[in-house]
Amino acid sequence: MNIKAGQLLSQIEYPADLRKLNKEQLHQVCEELRQYIIDVVSVHGGHFAASLGVVELTVALHYVFNTPYDQLVWDVGHQAYGHKILTGRREAFPTNRKYKGLSGFPKRDESRYDTFGVGHSSTSISAALGMAMASHYKGEFDRQHIAVIGDGAMTAGMAFEALNHAGVANANVLIILNDNCMSIDPNVGALKEYLTDITTSPTYNKVRDDVWNLLGKLPVGKKFTRDMASKLEASLKGVVSKSSNLFEALKMRYFGPIDGHNITKLTDTLQDLKDIPGPKLLHIVTTKGKGYALAEKDQTTWHAPGLFDKITGEIFKKPVTTPQPPKYQDVFGHTIIELAEQNDKIIGITPAMPSGSSLKFMMEKMPQRAFDVGICEQHAVTLSAGMATQGMRVFCTIYSSFFQRAFDQAVHDVAIQKLPVIFCLDRAGLVGEDGPTHHGAYDIAYMRSIPNVIISAPMNEEELRNLMYSAQLPENDMPYVIRYPRGQGVMPEWRMPFKAIKPGTGRKIRDGKDIAILSLGHTGNFVTEACKELISDGLQPAHYDMRFVKPLDEALLHEIFQSFDKVITVEDGAIRGGFGSAVIEFMADNNYKATVTRLGIPDKIVEHGKPEELYRECGYDAAGIARTTREMLKEKITVTI
Amino acid sequence: MNIKAGQLLSQIEYPADLRKLNKEQLHQVCEELRQYIIDVVSVHGGHFAASLGVVELTVALHYVFNTPYDQLVWDVGHQAYGHKILTGRREAFPTNRKYKGLSGFPKRDESRYDTFGVGHSSTSISAALGMAMASHYKGEFDRQHIAVIGDGAMTAGMAFEALNHAGVANANVLIILNDNCMSIDPNVGALKEYLTDITTSPTYNKVRDDVWNLLGKLPVGKKFTRDMASKLEASLKGVVSKSSNLFEALKMRYFGPIDGHNITKLTDTLQDLKDIPGPKLLHIVTTKGKGYALAEKDQTTWHAPGLFDKITGEIFKKPVTTPQPPKYQDVFGHTIIELAEQNDKIIGITPAMPSGSSLKFMMEKMPQRAFDVGICEQHAVTLSAGMATQGMRVFCTIYSSFFQRAFDQAVHDVAIQKLPVIFCLDRAGLVGEDGPTHHGAYDIAYMRSIPNVIISAPMNEEELRNLMYSAQLPENDMPYVIRYPRGQGVMPEWRMPFKAIKPGTGRKIRDGKDIAILSLGHTGNFVTEACKELISDGLQPAHYDMRFVKPLDEALLHEIFQSFDKVITVEDGAIRGGFGSAVIEFMADNNYKATVTRLGIPDKIVEHGKPEELYRECGYDAAGIARTTREMLKEKITVTI
Repeated sequence: MNIKAGQLLSQIEYPADLRKLNKEQLHQVCEELRQYIIDVVSVHGGHFAASLGVVELTVALHYVFNTPYDQLVWDVGHQAYGHKILTGRREAFPTNRKYKGLSGFPKRDESRYDTFGVGHSSTSISAALGMAMASHYKGEFDRQHIAVIGDGAMTAGMAFEALNHAGVANANVLIILNDNCMSIDPNVGALKEYLTDITTSPTYNKVRDDVWNLLGKLPVGKKFTRDMASKLEASLKGVVSKSSNLFEALKMRYFGPIDGHNITKLTDTLQDLKDIPGPKLLHIVTTKGKGYALAEKDQTTWHAPGLFDKITGEIFKKPVTTPQPPKYQDVFGHTIIELAEQNDKIIGITPAMPSGSSLKFMMEKMPQRAFDVGICEQHAVTLSAGMATQGMRVFCTIYSSFFQRAFDQAVHDVAIQKLPVIFCLDRAGLVGEDGPTHHGAYDIAYMRSIPNVIISAPMNEEELRNLMYSAQLPENDMPYVIRYPRGQGVMPEWRMPFKAIKPGTGRKIRDGKDIAILSLGHTGNFVTEACKELISDGLQPAHYDMRFVKPLDEALLHEIFQSFDKVITVEDGAIRGGFGSAVIEFMADNNYKATVTRLGIPDKIVEHGKPEELYRECGYDAAGIARTTREMLKEKITVTI
Repeated sequence: MNIKAGQLLSQIEYPADLRKLNKEQLHQVCEELRQYIIDVVSVHGGHFAASLGVVELTVALHYVFNTPYDQLVWDVGHQAYGHKILTGRREAFPTNRKYKGLSGFPKRDESRYDTFGVGHSSTSISAALGMAMASHYKGEFDRQHIAVIGDGAMTAGMAFEALNHAGVANANVLIILNDNCMSIDPNVGALKEYLTDITTSPTYNKVRDDVWNLLGKLPVGKKFTRDMASKLEASLKGVVSKSSNLFEALKMRYFGPIDGHNITKLTDTLQDLKDIPGPKLLHIVTTKGKGYALAEKDQTTWHAPGLFDKITGEIFKKPVTTPQPPKYQDVFGHTIIELAEQNDKIIGITPAMPSGSSLKFMMEKMPQRAFDVGICEQHAVTLSAGMATQGMRVFCTIYSSFFQRAFDQAVHDVAIQKLPVIFCLDRAGLVGEDGPTHHGAYDIAYMRSIPNVIISAPMNEEELRNLMYSAQLPENDMPYVIRYPRGQGVMPEWRMPFKAIKPGTGRKIRDGKDIAILSLGHTGNFVTEACKELISDGLQPAHYDMRFVKPLDEALLHEIFQSFDKVITVEDGAIRGGFGSAVIEFMADNNYKATVTRLGIPDKIVEHGKPEELYRECGYDAAGIARTTREMLKEKITVTI
């Protein structure tokens, strides 16, 4: 389907074209840009509401600033679709998030307008400040550096760290606080309430001016002496200059709030700010999903809705003919409630992913026991550790790639103290369309070297349930990682009764004699499939679902290495330092001499695409496993034939 | 030497004893506690100035609150010496930081008064809030949970994340902001300036009261109408209620600032706060090193001065008879200046460790090119990445264990984008007396799985210089890790001319034929020593200084595995997933079948002690290496004998 951009938009290849238009035409550009995003995303998919919310801002920024000389960093880059369309990628935009197509996030390799890769939130101020300080050092004093950051992203610690530095740095950095009260789910925390106060109080922005105006009119008479007047003035000056607002307290020149959908006001304000050197913050108020009524009303659903009918707003679902397996996240979301009903020590914590992790079910049902703490992985982990000291069994659910941000807390506050926090790492392994910034590739490798930690991965829904059940048993009171992938599992019937799994125990799935294939987690299903193919070739592979990276099932491994001289390990994680490495460490420590091939994510950045496409690329889909097995058994095959 | 505590202090085993005293006696307790800390630390060593600064606070907290039922979390626990002395560990205090002695930080295993292990900064609010939320959930509404946190620690993002949550949480958490303008070095950033504003403005705390008082006295007459008066009042209310201060903006009830050395004021204030439910913050102002004049004057030197004469203040240095090797950190500190003089793209960044990393030399000499960004590892890394996009070659120096806090930024902002940031990881390996929270045990393991990264470790000062030189060469423009240990190197003459080292190249140090010993970094010196011993036993070990974990020197490894069937790897890092694992991955990938023993930090928490004691415990000191070699060559030895 050929999607046409509107009349003005279709003439804009680069921001230079945009700047040829007069201000009045910008309204139409915004309208066409919004429409083009709706047209493309409805049939090609992708993030939706965030980019709609910044259409006017995007147009205004590229109109006013001299991009790419002036540098623009989009926090959590999924808001940058408009930016991509205006910077040379309008025609390519329908390939967005597709294998070998455009990335769903700004990406330095893709365009010089993409000054910084942004996928995880809250990095933009640090990055823009770094650019600004470099420009200052190089004497490029006319250059502006702009970070566009949401109020949700502003709650993450690193944004505060950057703000604390930016306020006293001698550099041209403009922070645009895009305040829409939303992360993917509604934003939480004190800062959000504070911003609401600012923006909903009609007096707030006039108040200081008013005070000064009134002060000039103070009468002096008998009762109200000059002394009293000057005392009052001094006091007021104290209040007005010292109190200021949160951002001014951090030495940031604060402007706003202004309506982020008023293109005229935006361009005028940005024009003024462009000429103000040093650090400054502009607070704009926008509506996520602006211009698409359904998205404005239900912003969480429309964050990334999948394909939809843009006219009716119907979100397309796959036609379901047979019972479908659930998403792993939903197995987590429902199972934690079942467990919490049995064990009153269980608490659930998510950093800003109640929908994505499905902890929202528990938050609705048990609001005293399940919490969204905002985009704050570090805090989420240490908060969980604090709770664990009081006997709570906290399920702290974090996407694998975001868990990287809490690594120190996992080591320092949980593992060293051997506190029984249960980490449910969702989106572990290759996540698909979100690409390199979101792949949960490294968790096995970075957690495996930490003492006191149990690391597990379920092969299917039943195992996820049983691991969750096991993790909260009193006898397993130590840090416990359960990693599982994005998306659907494999078992339409998944609500089995709980069975305890002892840490460090795997299971044999099929006997064999030519080669042993050891899988971790959901890749076991690929192995099962591969085995079918191999068996039909006359080969006899054994298959073990190891379930635990740490502790390893040493008894089972001894059995395996005593029986097989050829071994394949399979994992949906980085092969350097991962599960396969744990197996060859065991082999080396026990002086076995098997030939071992490790399959998993290779030592390179894997780009975006459908998970199946990426598994294939990395060679650990069923076909890849079968191929590797055949190669390792080449002699055998020759003999058999 | 038997150090005696004063008359009152010697009667206090636990806080219950303290609480038997009357308020007037607390002055004397403080005096005796301070003196005891001085007496013990001067002859036994340890952190000094921080604990002196909180003597009064420590006494007041244990006097007023019902510890350990009320829970006390000391941020960056090295301020907790007074706390340890008052909670059952007075007699044991001289064993502080010694092998098998007391930990220099609060530690849950050590005492139930140590509610949370704290070594890295800025964790206390999250931990205390977790405890408080758990108490609330359990219905323990009378229980208080107190986090004592410095203004330096408050700049770290995770403290802000916790504050943002605490302000809206329904829990009894009292945050005591101990404002002394210092981290180890003077504190930096906007927050510090803001706190200085608050505390140095005599009007600030009275100002709002004054305004309200004056408002009551406003005259109404001809010129100043009732309408104007009410307008002014409304405006003022707006200013006063909305502006508030930074902490109040975050919905935190703010009290203070008060003098943190006034024990009477402190106990009175804490008594009041004890009965106020919910989240609240008390701002106290203290002097780091209080009561020891020299420490008050030079707080950085006296942060952890080593042994000293408490009367004269002379800090003892080892008697120097021969030229001493420099500290690795000083080699870094001087070398970066030499390089920066040649290459104007070089910038230096440290998160709050200008003295500890010795970047201070460059900060003094080139203030436009070297920056302390505060306790902000996350920001430091992404700021460096931002600068790197502009062609800067940033040396970002961070202690290995603190680098854990910037892991996500290293992956997401540096490695994925392949930006040439140079990470100088100081204190890599076992750090000694600071113990488990500070050991730089995991950096090899957690960085090795990340694509696009060069990881190196110098065996000595010359290699550190050459690696630093090499890292900034244009041809090596990718992420580059150089890890080196705490303390002194081995080369008194170290200022050699620079020589480039190609990434992924090791070197043979000695030829041999019985076994190959592959060392990484400074452990090469232990191997050299071990080899002497082994040679005198008639054995012929070969020794290779591999220098790079990534990329590995594959040519050299092929040579080694083709020549030797016995190999030992040695590293000052975790053996799970570390350098040795990289070597056995190579071996497995290339189907070599050697017997490999990996020496390094085992998979357990290694406690504190002198580095030599810990290396010995872990078995990779020279004696341990020799022992392992002999075991692996047992047959050979028998044959030889």
